Amino acid sequence: MCSVMGEKKQLVEPRTLKGFQDLLPEQVIPRQRLLRVIESVFERYGYAPLETPALEYLDALLGTGGEGTNKELFRLESPENEPIALRFDLTVPFARLLAQYPDRLKPPFRRYAIGPVWRADKPGVGRFRQFVQCDIDVAGAPTVAADGEIVAVMADVMRALGVTRFVALINNRKVIDALLDGCGVTEESVQKHVLRVIDKLGKVGADNVRLELGPGRIDESGDPIAGVKLDDATIDRILGFIAIKGDTRAAIVAALEQALPESKAAREAVAEMRELAEALEALEVDEAHARFDPSLARGLDYYTGPIFEMTLPDAPQFGSVMGGGRYDGLVARFMDRPIPCTGMSVGVDRLVAALLHLGCLAPVKTPVQALVVTMGNVPKTETLKLAAELRGAGLCVETFFASRKKMQMGNQLSHADHYGIPVAVILGEDELRNGVVAVKDLRAGKAEREHIEDREAYREAGKTGQVTVPRSEAAAAIRAIVGGNSGTASGE
Amino acid sequence: MCSVMGEKKQLVEPRTLKGFQDLLPEQVIPRQRLLRVIESVFERYGYAPLETPALEYLDALLGTGGEGTNKELFRLESPENEPIALRFDLTVPFARLLAQYPDRLKPPFRRYAIGPVWRADKPGVGRFRQFVQCDIDVAGAPTVAADGEIVAVMADVMRALGVTRFVALINNRKVIDALLDGCGVTEESVQKHVLRVIDKLGKVGADNVRLELGPGRIDESGDPIAGVKLDDATIDRILGFIAIKGDTRAAIVAALEQALPESKAAREAVAEMRELAEALEALEVDEAHARFDPSLARGLDYYTGPIFEMTLPDAPQFGSVMGGGRYDGLVARFMDRPIPCTGMSVGVDRLVAALLHLGCLAPVKTPVQALVVTMGNVPKTETLKLAAELRGAGLCVETFFASRKKMQMGNQLSHADHYGIPVAVILGEDELRNGVVAVKDLRAGKAEREHIEDREAYREAGKTGQVTVPRSEAAAAIRAIVGGNSGTASGE
Repeated sequence: MCSVMGEKKQLVEPRTLKGFQDLLPEQVIPRQRLLRVIESVFERYGYAPLETPALEYLDALLGTGGEGTNKELFRLESPENEPIALRFDLTVPFARLLAQYPDRLKPPFRRYAIGPVWRADKPGVGRFRQFVQCDIDVAGAPTVAADGEIVAVMADVMRALGVTRFVALINNRKVIDALLDGCGVTEESVQKHVLRVIDKLGKVGADNVRLELGPGRIDESGDPIAGVKLDDATIDRILGFIAIKGDTRAAIVAALEQALPESKAAREAVAEMRELAEALEALEVDEAHARFDPSLARGLDYYTGPIFEMTLPDAPQFGSVMGGGRYDGLVARFMDRPIPCTGMSVGVDRLVAALLHLGCLAPVKTPVQALVVTMGNVPKTETLKLAAELRGAGLCVETFFASRKKMQMGNQLSHADHYGIPVAVILGEDELRNGVVAVKDLRAGKAEREHIEDREAYREAGKTGQVTVPRSEAAAAIRAIVGGNSGTASGE
Repeated sequence: MCSVMGEKKQLVEPRTLKGFQDLLPEQVIPRQRLLRVIESVFERYGYAPLETPALEYLDALLGTGGEGTNKELFRLESPENEPIALRFDLTVPFARLLAQYPDRLKPPFRRYAIGPVWRADKPGVGRFRQFVQCDIDVAGAPTVAADGEIVAVMADVMRALGVTRFVALINNRKVIDALLDGCGVTEESVQKHVLRVIDKLGKVGADNVRLELGPGRIDESGDPIAGVKLDDATIDRILGFIAIKGDTRAAIVAALEQALPESKAAREAVAEMRELAEALEALEVDEAHARFDPSLARGLDYYTGPIFEMTLPDAPQFGSVMGGGRYDGLVARFMDRPIPCTGMSVGVDRLVAALLHLGCLAPVKTPVQALVVTMGNVPKTETLKLAAELRGAGLCVETFFASRKKMQMGNQLSHADHYGIPVAVILGEDELRNGVVAVKDLRAGKAEREHIEDREAYREAGKTGQVTVPRSEAAAAIRAIVGGNSGTASGE
């Protein structure tokens, strides 16, 4: 607290909350650019933006995300002393809205939402207690054409972001259920256990999955992992099934049909997958970009039909960067009729990291395209005028503010260097008199110009990438250097 | 909680927290458009985006916003049992960042931030406990040229939003202080009282301000309002001073110089105002768009120099839509040296309301430009294909999802009507066979088409605004109807 102790004020230590992150411009700018591209794809498919408050009544959130989520809620009290909490996802608030505004949000209703969510779990590398979710969902769409559309959006987002190699993996809970029913594995808890084991295939490999479906195994750290205790014939059948591959989605559907037992559930599951394949075809989703994969399980309990995950073959270390599926039961928590829903969520932090890695997202540190630099006794108002002219031409331009004694040219150029500003527009007394400016590409010959204190030394240091042009041509000269260099809102 | 009671599941009542708001698409879309325009102006002036967490340690927030704010904090505990709270503004977190990352955020540093803040005060009409703030601030800019730039940004934002009549009012705390010092009103608490009374001028009028500076008065409800108890000569001098007007900023500076007592403080204050006037001139801010107004006081305590408010002469009922000023002391809470700062905050909710009122912001309800409507036995995949074609042409296009028995044309058109979709692209069996589509302007002849159940009736109802075109020309026909109709991200 701010109090006077003797003569000395007690300072508050500036700290970020444990598990939280401050985002500086070099982090916000690429993310912002990514979200703008994603939003425009969402809107092209007719998804409309919705926003709900950060806080919800506790009873709306409890129990929706499983036992873990209950413990992870940031709980507090409203000014009216009711129990409330910060939302842990955007799906539960969406389900609440559908039940609360049934007349206004008539199905079919497509919405997108982008916003922070909070989870009080153990922080770790890349795991934060506040993170941004970015979701689309369709409410009131009983047909799997809607699931096809979700996958088409996922693929279009990747394309719009400039990614060429990506694969959406697709499966259907009904397919797995039909298989397990056919194998006599009918108890729900056992089915869920099998799903959890299959979900680990990519991580632990087929041999370990075989052991976990059977007697169990000892993991690398020496801990025992309990097995599902299925018999060998059943395990063979499951492993054979999840290994099914094919050149096209239609070929995989045909193979699934052969491998599944003869039952009503199996017929329905296959019919759904066939319809989904047709929808993807109609929506112009390439075979290379969306593949049926019977081994895809996804951890969450609430899926009831198609499930999807977006993977990047050239950046597998980032895991899946989008995921979703059909959930027909969640809204029934708030109202007395079910509303069939399907949707997906973008892992924003992961996707930003993967795209920076792949070079699809530029590591832009600043929106500024040019710094107006003054030398000698040029009046400050002249700096402001030049900046205003360049802004009038649509450029993002900064001027340097400091006390008079800190206005040396070296300080101004260090500032540009520190913040990664690509161009300096130099206005000295000569330039002012002659109606010209010097436009300098600061990325060219950067090393030479360090520690420059005055005009003469600067001139000595060489004029790599520097041109002197009439003021009326300054904007064009800057554009020639920065080109499309802008990762920011104004550059869209 | 979701529990089974006998056969019946107990439902959770869907409710929004008291004092909070859900924003549906018709509210989010205009606001989003507004924020994109504002962001692009901010970036044109070199402001870079920053984001901080919603939660801060309690000691960082306490005492910064005055006694009222302390009470209004949403307080909770971190998972480590430390006292934390939701931020109540974006300025205190910015001050924390400057102290926490002195090497990375070297002054001068310009940042913008847009995000929700929380205040547990009494909710009322247009007053919410969570609302969005949108701020720019420059740190480490001791010169009033920076204040001039803030005003230039305010003016450019209004221009970029299409507002033609707007006036930024500008004053300087140093001017008022010099006046009061010269009148012998030197005690800080009395000076603050005078400021609060002056701040009411627009609301209560000069006669009531005279009474409140003197003996006090009885307000309309019969309650007594204590006066400052100044003598008549001092009151005359203050009222005369705050009534100073002039045709230009320079003329007002000259008048201030005459009216202020002869003192060092007065000379400094006048010099600052003169420099500010020169900066505004250099930054091409019209006299009509930024006026010096000695009666501007602003309620907040922490301002130390120039202060500003943006007003809309054609929509005075919305009050000031932006406000700010110089505050040179706030960062000193977190570190042992002051960093001079100036900045401003946009009242996002007020500005959206004012711009909708003025017609500068379109009341767009949906991003969707066209709904693909099917008739008869056209396969669903054909609908999806047509939608994909139109999206490929850059349009925002929706298809209708429903169970087979709800796919009648009437339902599809009701859907378009309900969500305000402007165009229907109709694909029947004839159209499919002939490679054409019917493109219909749904805003033309809307009334006629209500309650249409089948194709024949629809045809009877007239074809106002409907054209049949080859599929390859469908996108152009839609654009001819919607024109620039898009208030959304993709329309930027």
